Amino acid sequence: MKLIGVDLGGTTFSVGLVSEEGKILKKITQKTHVENGKEDVLERLSEAILEVSERENAPFVGIGSPGSIDRERGVVRFSPNFPDWKDVSLAEEIGKRTGKKVFVENDANAFVLGEKWFGAGRGYEHIVALTLGTGIGGGVITHGKLLTGKDGIGAELGHVVVEPNGPMCNCGTRGCLEAIASATAIRRFLKESYKKYGGSLVYKLAETPEKADAKHLFDAARMGDRFALMLRDRIVDALARAIAGYIHIFNPEVVIIGGGISRAGDVLLEPLRERVPDYLMPSFLGTYQILPSPLVEDAGILGAASIIRERMGG
Amino acid sequence: MKLIGVDLGGTTFSVGLVSEEGKILKKITQKTHVENGKEDVLERLSEAILEVSERENAPFVGIGSPGSIDRERGVVRFSPNFPDWKDVSLAEEIGKRTGKKVFVENDANAFVLGEKWFGAGRGYEHIVALTLGTGIGGGVITHGKLLTGKDGIGAELGHVVVEPNGPMCNCGTRGCLEAIASATAIRRFLKESYKKYGGSLVYKLAETPEKADAKHLFDAARMGDRFALMLRDRIVDALARAIAGYIHIFNPEVVIIGGGISRAGDVLLEPLRERVPDYLMPSFLGTYQILPSPLVEDAGILGAASIIRERMGG
Repeated sequence: MKLIGVDLGGTTFSVGLVSEEGKILKKITQKTHVENGKEDVLERLSEAILEVSERENAPFVGIGSPGSIDRERGVVRFSPNFPDWKDVSLAEEIGKRTGKKVFVENDANAFVLGEKWFGAGRGYEHIVALTLGTGIGGGVITHGKLLTGKDGIGAELGHVVVEPNGPMCNCGTRGCLEAIASATAIRRFLKESYKKYGGSLVYKLAETPEKADAKHLFDAARMGDRFALMLRDRIVDALARAIAGYIHIFNPEVVIIGGGISRAGDVLLEPLRERVPDYLMPSFLGTYQILPSPLVEDAGILGAASIIRERMGG
Repeated sequence: MKLIGVDLGGTTFSVGLVSEEGKILKKITQKTHVENGKEDVLERLSEAILEVSERENAPFVGIGSPGSIDRERGVVRFSPNFPDWKDVSLAEEIGKRTGKKVFVENDANAFVLGEKWFGAGRGYEHIVALTLGTGIGGGVITHGKLLTGKDGIGAELGHVVVEPNGPMCNCGTRGCLEAIASATAIRRFLKESYKKYGGSLVYKLAETPEKADAKHLFDAARMGDRFALMLRDRIVDALARAIAGYIHIFNPEVVIIGGGISRAGDVLLEPLRERVPDYLMPSFLGTYQILPSPLVEDAGILGAASIIRERMGG
């Protein structure tokens, strides 16, 4: 049997045919074109699913979607990425059009499932996963099971307060991890800091200073730019406090860092690994690993495909 | 069948015979006398167990113990309350002396189990419990199961950082919840503040200013003392940030507050209930309750007895 994984994003969607070992055999990526309306997206998504699975034994589809998901019924309750989607029965609609059985999961939950089945979480029962991207998503496996909470909205790891009275977050609270360590937060910091630190390499690496982003920040930090290192250290410190908290709470084998920002690599991960122990009780030292996601560009599709593995019980 | 619950503390231990409905039928409390050595404590504990269960059908014992517990083997790895205990096979030692089957659990985990089986958590699958006492303990039930993590040391809810660069915690980190909202932290704050706020009612309620503690603080706050209210608000704010974090992470039905400090009642709980939403994403509003533990003095024995219920699967 092969698996179909759908990474449904606000800008693009990707549909992949995945082997049971987690190899992507075929892949279709399209612009989502949310502005064309729900029906159009559902139609094109269904066509892509049928196309990648033509003449294949692939009766199941897993969809990782941003937003608040009713995972039992496969409904997107609402999503910041799809403003006109309210209680869309994604599983049913796609099922009707493709004749396949469809499972839907929040994209951050799909991410940790992907790591559990195909990535850095293989063989582990206690996994904390963070996706550092436009926002910060979290997924947790504890005692082998996905943690979702009463309404399926738990594991919001990006919205713990790490800087009381810190920057305002989209969620309305000040100093959330997302307000400091997401790509959006980094762009905002860089914009605000231009006046004072305009001489920094960060702004020279960008096409124009206004376009300076996380990639430029970490590139400049790698080259030893002082402003970049200072901002990197603030981000590392916020992440370290949050991650130490997750380690105290979940006592995990592994903390996996994914999302666009994780591509910064060692310039982010090395100081992070050094800083986390400063916030840990001694009994937790040496109990965990902090690893980058090995799935990179494929994390979305593999995460979505692994929803099937999870729901079918392996 | 009746249950035997043992609340093993550094100062006293209590052994109770508990009905299946969670009523304490008999109870023996003794000074622990840790200084007499391990053998003496084990002997007297075993005698008390045999005494409360004489002529009763009560073949199982649950022990809630502070410290790091190997819950599978029933071993106290180490405990700040029992400095000379290293890898003590509590289950085996007590089992040998009493002929009963013994289960051991960390006391904060026992607390949340007690709430699940006999207290404010009855009927819920997602419970976060905090004991505010000398230290701050945490216990979590998620998807109906006790969260313990890989080594059984998870759910350390008292050691999340809520005030970066805040007061030093016993665990070696600055600004942990325990360093701000535990009875120990409150006594330290009161000692440090005497010079500046010596006129406060807090110090007048205490026998001597040096003896001012959490009870005096909350009593004075209830009477409208400004310094007491200021300190209460700092404690409430720290708790609110931490609890909002747990709500984001666990999406629980109920957050239960126990331990000596919870006896402050509404002067603590009311502002806490008001403050938590300030740190929550809108989708979590109205999804949870914050309740005081109804078990009060019996929480230790009932929690310990409920370990048996949990291990036997109900």
